[in-house]
Amino acid sequence: MRTIFYISDGTALTAEAFGKAMLSMFPVQVVHKTLAFIDTPEKAKEAVNKINQAYDASGERPIIFHTFVSIDIKRIIMSSRGACYDFLDYFIAPISQELGIPAQPKTHRTHGIQESMVDREKYDFRIEAVNYTLDNDDGSNISDYDEADIILLGVSRTGKTPTSLYLALQYGIKAANYPLTEDDDIEHLQLPKVLRPHVRKIYGLTLEPQRLHEIRSKRREGSRYASLAQCRFEVQQVENMYRREGIPFLDSTHFSVEEIAAKILAETNLERHRF
Amino acid sequence: MRTIFYISDGTALTAEAFGKAMLSMFPVQVVHKTLAFIDTPEKAKEAVNKINQAYDASGERPIIFHTFVSIDIKRIIMSSRGACYDFLDYFIAPISQELGIPAQPKTHRTHGIQESMVDREKYDFRIEAVNYTLDNDDGSNISDYDEADIILLGVSRTGKTPTSLYLALQYGIKAANYPLTEDDDIEHLQLPKVLRPHVRKIYGLTLEPQRLHEIRSKRREGSRYASLAQCRFEVQQVENMYRREGIPFLDSTHFSVEEIAAKILAETNLERHRF
Repeated sequence: MRTIFYISDGTALTAEAFGKAMLSMFPVQVVHKTLAFIDTPEKAKEAVNKINQAYDASGERPIIFHTFVSIDIKRIIMSSRGACYDFLDYFIAPISQELGIPAQPKTHRTHGIQESMVDREKYDFRIEAVNYTLDNDDGSNISDYDEADIILLGVSRTGKTPTSLYLALQYGIKAANYPLTEDDDIEHLQLPKVLRPHVRKIYGLTLEPQRLHEIRSKRREGSRYASLAQCRFEVQQVENMYRREGIPFLDSTHFSVEEIAAKILAETNLERHRF
Repeated sequence: MRTIFYISDGTALTAEAFGKAMLSMFPVQVVHKTLAFIDTPEKAKEAVNKINQAYDASGERPIIFHTFVSIDIKRIIMSSRGACYDFLDYFIAPISQELGIPAQPKTHRTHGIQESMVDREKYDFRIEAVNYTLDNDDGSNISDYDEADIILLGVSRTGKTPTSLYLALQYGIKAANYPLTEDDDIEHLQLPKVLRPHVRKIYGLTLEPQRLHEIRSKRREGSRYASLAQCRFEVQQVENMYRREGIPFLDSTHFSVEEIAAKILAETNLERHRF
């Protein structure tokens, strides 16, 4: 099988994003290897050995997606026998011309904390959002809801917690989440009173009953809680309530946490670029 | 100020990664706007209006980073008056040639859950890691440490929790974390007995005393816990213990959670590409 290398003198997150987006265009099975923080000639030479060994072992030329600030280190990588692709390089000239300023490459500008106070504050903002989200997971701390940017609502196991954490970590959004449970009297489901003052910040999550049944069965096999009938009933009741209350909601069955978060942001106009 | 648009018929995460990496090469202040899920001609025409309005309002030509599967929708975006950059387009031909297969663009392949069972299982794996990490946050559930891929160790407020969550969400790594506290007798600091059987999975986090003091002061201003003297003492004791025990550790002061995670992965050889 062909080996794909993602190599950088930083985190290699950009090289991964670039390479994976490219590969998503092709129906091909590959082995992925990331080599991050390749920031000395010695490490670069080691990387070249790994590339050449992968070539010899498989007989298929490795593909290298790389982003380097140091030209000297980049040259060492490009001396390997892999097929090298560098998207920064290609676009730098036209974007420099458009902006009317020369490029000033600097390591770690994409995923690093910058040295300025502004950047440090923007970063702290994200960590604060993570702390807020953890403190407000699963309906705890309702007194803090004034501070929430969004409150995710849903029955048990519909993806509220991972989505909240992703919104906080990725976007610095203070995302609380509140579970609807048996205590909320699902048979006559109303919006819980504590949520009423915050109704405009609420976003509902739901899931196909069959999928909910599968997920709950992993936790409590054979229980009433996990039964398909119960899952169907809860989903129906909660969707009816969302509609009655005018709460926007999303069926998350076929979406990853990245997609759910992006859809919520697109629909609610929460700001993606706070940091 | 110039407006930068990130536009896609999917989450636009790839367009953002591409655009932000490009812009990181230039010392320039801009306004960022993401338009995700632009998947109909109507939405595309609306996007064109927004681009042209941003041009008229600022007098500076907007820059558009876009990734589209649908060529028809892409053409509408490219009819705007912005400067459009499409990195997928440029690299598709050479990579197709290298792979020896034609491209088969498909929406949502990069950040979506694929339809096959394998992809669903890989995705569930990540969500399981998030659940594991939450259940094992802050020293709870020590009985589960057999299952951990990594156990982050450190004194209070050194970034253990955000780093654990990022490792779980981004990489599907089961990351427990354990806090060293007054109860661990910091004056004669030993590796806590419960951690001894798992010592090879432990990774230490530390922070410059001044920075730790600032962070703790936000929580408990003026307390002994937050005092610079106490922070200095704890950091010194814990770093000595890491060295004595041969535990690898990282001073996270100048790094973002992305960088900390990438450095830990690079150093421990935990697998980045599990899904």
